[in-house]
Amino acid sequence: MEYQKVLNDIYNEVSKLPKVGSVATSIPELAKVDPDKFGLYLTTFEGKNFSLGDYQEKFSIQSISKVLTLTMALTFLDEKIWERVSVEPSGNAFNSLVQLEYEQGIPRNPFINAGALVIADMLVTVLKDPKQDFLAFIRMLTGIPTIDFNLNVAKSEKETGFRNAAMANFLKSYGNIKNDVDTVLDFYFHQCSVEMSCKELAQAFYFLTNGGRTQTGKRILSKSQVKRTNALMQTCGFYDESGEFTYKVGLPGKSGIGGGIVALLPEKFVVATWNPRLNKKGNSELGMKSLELLTTKTELSIF
Amino acid sequence: MEYQKVLNDIYNEVSKLPKVGSVATSIPELAKVDPDKFGLYLTTFEGKNFSLGDYQEKFSIQSISKVLTLTMALTFLDEKIWERVSVEPSGNAFNSLVQLEYEQGIPRNPFINAGALVIADMLVTVLKDPKQDFLAFIRMLTGIPTIDFNLNVAKSEKETGFRNAAMANFLKSYGNIKNDVDTVLDFYFHQCSVEMSCKELAQAFYFLTNGGRTQTGKRILSKSQVKRTNALMQTCGFYDESGEFTYKVGLPGKSGIGGGIVALLPEKFVVATWNPRLNKKGNSELGMKSLELLTTKTELSIF
Amino acid sequence: MEYQKVLNDIYNEVSKLPKVGSVATSIPELAKVDPDKFGLYLTTFEGKNFSLGDYQEKFSIQSISKVLTLTMALTFLDEKIWERVSVEPSGNAFNSLVQLEYEQGIPRNPFINAGALVIADMLVTVLKDPKQDFLAFIRMLTGIPTIDFNLNVAKSEKETGFRNAAMANFLKSYGNIKNDVDTVLDFYFHQCSVEMSCKELAQAFYFLTNGGRTQTGKRILSKSQVKRTNALMQTCGFYDESGEFTYKVGLPGKSGIGGGIVALLPEKFVVATWNPRLNKKGNSELGMKSLELLTTKTELSIF
Amino acid sequence: MEYQKVLNDIYNEVSKLPKVGSVATSIPELAKVDPDKFGLYLTTFEGKNFSLGDYQEKFSIQSISKVLTLTMALTFLDEKIWERVSVEPSGNAFNSLVQLEYEQGIPRNPFINAGALVIADMLVTVLKDPKQDFLAFIRMLTGIPTIDFNLNVAKSEKETGFRNAAMANFLKSYGNIKNDVDTVLDFYFHQCSVEMSCKELAQAFYFLTNGGRTQTGKRILSKSQVKRTNALMQTCGFYDESGEFTYKVGLPGKSGIGGGIVALLPEKFVVATWNPRLNKKGNSELGMKSLELLTTKTELSIF
Repeated sequence: MEYQKVLNDIYNEVSKLPKVGSVATSIPELAKVDPDKFGLYLTTFEGKNFSLGDYQEKFSIQSISKVLTLTMALTFLDEKIWERVSVEPSGNAFNSLVQLEYEQGIPRNPFINAGALVIADMLVTVLKDPKQDFLAFIRMLTGIPTIDFNLNVAKSEKETGFRNAAMANFLKSYGNIKNDVDTVLDFYFHQCSVEMSCKELAQAFYFLTNGGRTQTGKRILSKSQVKRTNALMQTCGFYDESGEFTYKVGLPGKSGIGGGIVALLPEKFVVATWNPRLNKKGNSELGMKSLELLTTKTELSIF
Repeated sequence: MEYQKVLNDIYNEVSKLPKVGSVATSIPELAKVDPDKFGLYLTTFEGKNFSLGDYQEKFSIQSISKVLTLTMALTFLDEKIWERVSVEPSGNAFNSLVQLEYEQGIPRNPFINAGALVIADMLVTVLKDPKQDFLAFIRMLTGIPTIDFNLNVAKSEKETGFRNAAMANFLKSYGNIKNDVDTVLDFYFHQCSVEMSCKELAQAFYFLTNGGRTQTGKRILSKSQVKRTNALMQTCGFYDESGEFTYKVGLPGKSGIGGGIVALLPEKFVVATWNPRLNKKGNSELGMKSLELLTTKTELSIF
Repeated sequence: MEYQKVLNDIYNEVSKLPKVGSVATSIPELAKVDPDKFGLYLTTFEGKNFSLGDYQEKFSIQSISKVLTLTMALTFLDEKIWERVSVEPSGNAFNSLVQLEYEQGIPRNPFINAGALVIADMLVTVLKDPKQDFLAFIRMLTGIPTIDFNLNVAKSEKETGFRNAAMANFLKSYGNIKNDVDTVLDFYFHQCSVEMSCKELAQAFYFLTNGGRTQTGKRILSKSQVKRTNALMQTCGFYDESGEFTYKVGLPGKSGIGGGIVALLPEKFVVATWNPRLNKKGNSELGMKSLELLTTKTELSIF
Repeated sequence: MEYQKVLNDIYNEVSKLPKVGSVATSIPELAKVDPDKFGLYLTTFEGKNFSLGDYQEKFSIQSISKVLTLTMALTFLDEKIWERVSVEPSGNAFNSLVQLEYEQGIPRNPFINAGALVIADMLVTVLKDPKQDFLAFIRMLTGIPTIDFNLNVAKSEKETGFRNAAMANFLKSYGNIKNDVDTVLDFYFHQCSVEMSCKELAQAFYFLTNGGRTQTGKRILSKSQVKRTNALMQTCGFYDESGEFTYKVGLPGKSGIGGGIVALLPEKFVVATWNPRLNKKGNSELGMKSLELLTTKTELSIF
């Protein structure tokens, strides 16, 4: 497979597209980013790397972190997680409280905000130094010791994240947050503030294309856990646009409002894209388009 | 791969499980079936066949027919379908009217009843003799000229299907049914009443594991259309249990309240199961369990 | 109380208001009416009459008929009605199916369409010749033998009333319609098509201001039934604008999309208004304004 | 009217009823109260007083306080209140977040928790010393300088009121809370913790039966504001049982989960009841029954 040629073709095509969507403004600190940054990084199962544009520039991974906290929680609690979170697509916006009320405080899946808050609560319970331990986990996955939080972003989210505070208190009212609400929110705002480049994200997610092992061979998840994590990304990775992404791209993946997307094809490749312009559903328009072109041009998808 | 051994192991395991769930009673004619029938049929990409139990006995395919009507609609209208139906998982029960109201008459996907009714309406518009043409299409897919409607089941649904009548009228009120409501319902009740065996279903769905071509090489859908149809089965094939099925089984598939399930792994196999006992979500409990065992034992899934 | 002076003042004030809202278009036959007709008729408890404008012109009473069918059902079934309909305001649009699904087929109150369909079903069960018997009931209430259906309006609703057909089938699916769906809809479309003038409506509703007796002294409801019927008009008479009407006007009342409103103050007066221009909630803008002026100027309201 | 005889008859009847419902447990401090306390106090328009049982014992007024904060807000802001709160019945439980999301942060009415939080926010803005000023207002209404908060109850609510914290943060996320969330919640928990007896409540609410003036003649609200406040109690005073209360009792009123109810008939009487056992909707079962008997026996209601 001539990946670099495919990537170059993608670059040519998406460069000609009109610029639509805009940078996330819900978190003031995120609104400062240059809207026209574009990066893409693809690592094959065999370890070959291909790249485009600003693939080395760090950005706020935001909700992409939810896959990493879920992974970490799986290593501690495995199937016990599902006593407090479901595995169904939500059919609602990522920050909707409606479904949570109808379903009595059990979030639909770990990738909507409510579900990620419950996972955060689990980690706060099991980790000794939650924020540092989570950083250490990402550094271990990637082998890159400089990956870090952006404290300004974390602070900015804390000051404006009333919807997440509402959600955490709502979960607490149902007994589905065990720790102090502020502690859980603090962890959550920090996990979302982690900054990584496309290249670093591809490295971090490589284990999900490799049956649970990192590039250095370290086992993170069992094969069965990998299948399930990928399944969740497939059905729930793009909020209420998950069906659209599955339909058009046909890969498990996860987006963040920083404009990043990670997607992967088991035993074939893992790919990360970045462009800060978001569509109405909160997903990177150019990232989705690039990945649709990738699976169309390579005729590679899970289907 | 020793499929027959795997199937035998599955049979041994599921035989020991307690009998849970019961036969669908919403359609009186369906309630008459023996609840303990169990069949399974697997056809590999290369054309080898493996079977278990009552795999030759016909049953009511019900909602499994929705994949076949969607396929037929795709051959006529391709992407124009999506102007009237979405591709997102619903997060609600298969016959919920709530979402339809919030989304102004555009069904979430073609596999919930509302979506299937819109697809039925499209076929009523484009086909000369809709019911016979649909039968002819299935007979062509399978090469079996005796596949037919069960007119008693169709009649039984017509007499008790007030919820579907409500849905069709509701869609009509939004202008998303173009033909006469009764004509569309009549077609819909007939499509659901088709009777097929596990073996026949595996034959009918083979083209989705073979990039769009039947076993005799006839092209039904393009590669891209196959990817999209499989994607829809993945995210929407099991009503509000689609996430669970994806999570546990990891294959695109479709269930029906007759107790049948079809699932497939592209370029590997297509498999059909049947047991009439349904869980609370309306899916065959034993069928789901069998398929979970299949992907666990073979370590084959899309993820 | 100088009612005629108050009415004249109201007329002067509302004449100067800009013309807002438009005639109901959901029923084609209704859309033909002159949007600037305006009538008002007030009958005091003591039997004095006061009028304005087009008070003698007949119009389609539409949902105002729901109070009359409820009254008729109360005479046959009294409190047994409430086994199949609730008495709570809906908080939703008059034709929403959402709440009906959450509440398993029990309509919120008898004045939303779903509730009125259940009342219609009750009357179809208990009456010998439902449509004629209902006409006879209104003629008896008013003493006017010429009050009649407008068959063109009834036919027009039948041909376009898919939402009501959806609702009736939905209720039937919950077992809360006992008769044939088409029979119930036929009765319902006829009851809504009755044509009356402001003067005739005031006469018909006089018994609710007179403890249950008509102007000729005939007892229609008990005192307790009158209290309850008025209470229902107070909390549920104006769809999801009932709170607004209670807040601004402070009288029990009922509106219809023909542009009519009837309201009353027990042992003081009954008043009917008509102007076909509807606001966004489906209520007559000018009618509501006139009644607000009436209770403000007279300082008479139930509160 | 022989009120004392009527009250005695009510007492005899309700004494024989089986004890149903239980004390509110959501606030631990409230759960300590004796479930079988029963008091009733009625003050006529002319100033005569009638009483039953524990009418002098203080209890937690809880949501009854919402009428008093609304009154206070009306004196400062009048109609400007309605730019941030609606006047429609909610059709949902008192603490539901669902409707708030659908309606973009504008609470349905000032008597559901969300609405009361917005009113609390308004008072925090306009008052110099909000908590003390509110106390002073109640003391002025009643002429009783000893009425006070129960600080244990306020503290108990603060420690367990995660649902209210969720609501306040949710409102803040829509921009409909202007002050610090914790400050608003602190005020709200204190207003709910006020302790008053049936006698004191009747005195406090007398102005609503007297066109806006207290027993000492002090004007609190205009006549029009009284009409509107009473209208709101009528349509929204009992959460999703407001229709039931209006239907059975036919008086504007307000309940609290401490087991108190205040109701009134303009220019006739104001009445307060107390029994801590609540029905499933959170209203005092015995209080509602007593008031139903009162309006049935006296044949006095607004309808």
